Amino acid sequence: MAKNEHMTAARSAALEELSSLLGERLSTAVAMRSQHAQDPTWNPVLPPDAVAFAESEAEVAAIMGICARHGLPVIPFGTGTSLEGHISAPQGGVCIDTSRMNAIVAVNPEDMDCRVQPGVTRRQLNSHLRDTGLFFPIDPGADASIGGMAATRASGTNAVRYGTMADNVRAMRVVLPSGEIIRTARRARKSAAGYDLTRLFIGSEGTLGVTTELTLKLHGIPETIMAGICAFASVEAACNTVIETIQLGLPVARIELLDDATIATVNAYSHLGLEERPTLFVEFHGSPAHVREQVENFTALAQAHGGTLGEWATREEERNRIWRARHDAFWAAKAAFPGMEAMTTDVCVPISRLAECVTLTRKDLAGHGLSGPIVGHVGDGNFHVILFARPDDEAQKAKIAAFSERLVARALSMDGTCTGEHGIGMGKMKYMRKEHGPAVDVMRAIKAAIDPQGIMNPGKLIPSR
Amino acid sequence: MAKNEHMTAARSAALEELSSLLGERLSTAVAMRSQHAQDPTWNPVLPPDAVAFAESEAEVAAIMGICARHGLPVIPFGTGTSLEGHISAPQGGVCIDTSRMNAIVAVNPEDMDCRVQPGVTRRQLNSHLRDTGLFFPIDPGADASIGGMAATRASGTNAVRYGTMADNVRAMRVVLPSGEIIRTARRARKSAAGYDLTRLFIGSEGTLGVTTELTLKLHGIPETIMAGICAFASVEAACNTVIETIQLGLPVARIELLDDATIATVNAYSHLGLEERPTLFVEFHGSPAHVREQVENFTALAQAHGGTLGEWATREEERNRIWRARHDAFWAAKAAFPGMEAMTTDVCVPISRLAECVTLTRKDLAGHGLSGPIVGHVGDGNFHVILFARPDDEAQKAKIAAFSERLVARALSMDGTCTGEHGIGMGKMKYMRKEHGPAVDVMRAIKAAIDPQGIMNPGKLIPSR
Repeated sequence: MAKNEHMTAARSAALEELSSLLGERLSTAVAMRSQHAQDPTWNPVLPPDAVAFAESEAEVAAIMGICARHGLPVIPFGTGTSLEGHISAPQGGVCIDTSRMNAIVAVNPEDMDCRVQPGVTRRQLNSHLRDTGLFFPIDPGADASIGGMAATRASGTNAVRYGTMADNVRAMRVVLPSGEIIRTARRARKSAAGYDLTRLFIGSEGTLGVTTELTLKLHGIPETIMAGICAFASVEAACNTVIETIQLGLPVARIELLDDATIATVNAYSHLGLEERPTLFVEFHGSPAHVREQVENFTALAQAHGGTLGEWATREEERNRIWRARHDAFWAAKAAFPGMEAMTTDVCVPISRLAECVTLTRKDLAGHGLSGPIVGHVGDGNFHVILFARPDDEAQKAKIAAFSERLVARALSMDGTCTGEHGIGMGKMKYMRKEHGPAVDVMRAIKAAIDPQGIMNPGKLIPSR
Repeated sequence: MAKNEHMTAARSAALEELSSLLGERLSTAVAMRSQHAQDPTWNPVLPPDAVAFAESEAEVAAIMGICARHGLPVIPFGTGTSLEGHISAPQGGVCIDTSRMNAIVAVNPEDMDCRVQPGVTRRQLNSHLRDTGLFFPIDPGADASIGGMAATRASGTNAVRYGTMADNVRAMRVVLPSGEIIRTARRARKSAAGYDLTRLFIGSEGTLGVTTELTLKLHGIPETIMAGICAFASVEAACNTVIETIQLGLPVARIELLDDATIATVNAYSHLGLEERPTLFVEFHGSPAHVREQVENFTALAQAHGGTLGEWATREEERNRIWRARHDAFWAAKAAFPGMEAMTTDVCVPISRLAECVTLTRKDLAGHGLSGPIVGHVGDGNFHVILFARPDDEAQKAKIAAFSERLVARALSMDGTCTGEHGIGMGKMKYMRKEHGPAVDVMRAIKAAIDPQGIMNPGKLIPSR
């Protein structure tokens, strides 16, 4: 048989075995496959050959075993909210949808941790935790699955205070490409026993195995939360306020920049009625006295940079209104460009370079006749630009691609990274060598050591030589 | 040639090449070799064939290139304060002493980070930083090198608030066993660009490469620091106070348990005059108002468990006296057992199991006629037992080895780890399989992928099959 025929035969054999294992929970229907090949951006996403709805770790291991035996690719799937084509199946294969593995296995309030299956979403977890006085802080905006958030090393608005997924997962259970099941660590708060496999799997984008359980760190729900909105005359003034807030060591829980273009779209979408100026959305957590102290310190800093603060929101519904509007910034931008497709980018620079990077990026946009809202988790030096094109406007898409390349080059020249939180997927593989140099070959060697057949989410993260 | 002769010839050829490269900075003197084969415990430590004093990254790469070509082991060396035989040379080879690579390359106050060579020690760094208002919090007690602290994933007293080395290194430069030089990450505060190589190298105990530079996170020196000493009627009462402190979310900067046996030795050594009861040493960092609030909350908690608090120390010299005494606990114990050798162990359990684990361990000691001070970073669930034997008392050493095995088994049965901070080295390899199961094979595969010849610090961390 020619190679292609051989592949086709192997594929059929594998799908037949999977079908006997899973019955109706294996779907090869076009609609189902295409539903698992959506991306909120115009990144091309190819459908898998089949979608398998796993219901247990043992089942994931069995699916993996079958796929490994036949050399079929495996693509783990959470909620499909990733932004760089992470769920695409460029070589076909089986998409393992973990959404039915959504049990909260255990909550240990005394250790401030919990064990969850990968399909649990962050909102589901936080609703479940409400009565314990604890919460899980990582908040990438979308109601993503915890497994997907670990796979992409998600962060979002609370990361400036609570860290990213890399800081909030104690241990994982993983089905390896061999079908073997490992646990990456124990439940202790720290360990010096061997290589940090937990942190290796976090951010590995499904290229090393399928996560089947996660032990997460939880945090106490703060006694007092105050959120505020502060408008500035310029992006520089807003960024400089952020830089000083971090340098002063103010334990700000959230500090988000929305530039004037973003405020315009957010006003229209969420009826906020804010002045169309570069604006910071901020939030402080702690005891009443400590939050009051933080708010006073922040107010002094912001005013020194000409910031105008509105009233502070303390009640939950007021705060939710602010953060709902912030999280809807992407959809607000989409609504402002009707009939267009979106591309959202993401870079992260050392905070000392933030004002410069954002300012140069705005000039770049203006200089190339592009308009794109800028919004970001600026306490980490991380920001997004959201850009639009008509579906058939290849010239505009090319222009935006060229802008993205310049944006990444700018971030790298400032010792930043090509992505603070969206990840590499397929969209940013071309920057890996520029960012990491020969360290890419170390990643490739690790990948080959754990997945010698190359069946785990192939075509992602590690560029071909 | 027989294999041994071949090895000997290769060794001579390598040493000759190294000698032309380094001149007097390559030493094969017995005294120098033996000076690089000391361990504060009775773990057997074998000397290397030679000690190479590298002065630059390029030189480390050249040394590595020569050793790789001749298949000679390479053992990275910082200050030699590790406790599990990490620096032993069981297969001979070249010890690369990095103590002369001790430049502080750059301090970036605006980004709260700095770049240092691996031979910089933590005290050297903090003296250097004093005028910037910043400090590096990781404090394992010994004035260890930053390179060694990263290699062993060190933590210590401040980890409960500031995290471990895994949380405080942004990026590293590493010479790989191939002689190639990589940088593990950029200087941005976060990144989702590929596998987390920084965290893979942290805690890898020199088995994957030689660190030649580290980018560290720094923290603001707190405006106010208050330290206190609180005595309890029982270890349980002290542990329960710790558990509640953590659960209440009090941002305690240090919370250390010294059991009554430790207090006795510390009193004798550091002239503290404390009551011989289980005692917590605590410290709070922050603004004056916030520290006052934390101290009040802690006092209420401690008193509810029958704790007796002395006066709070605010002045630097008073605080230093407390922490000096705490750090000298190992030497205080050594002084209490004159003429004896020491063995210090280290386990870490989920904090909910801490009181139980410490209590059972004290019963175990008493039941086997052993006496050993217990001291620990209890806010992390991490504690040490220090044990003594006369150099020639093999029966006592065997008894202590059996105790250590029971201690580790107890910690593992509580979902804890065989080491919270000392690391695996040679001393704890036998527990790796028990703790990690098949995940050990993943570590072995990674090791083989990065160091196919197995020349980097061989015989450590990963047990033979």
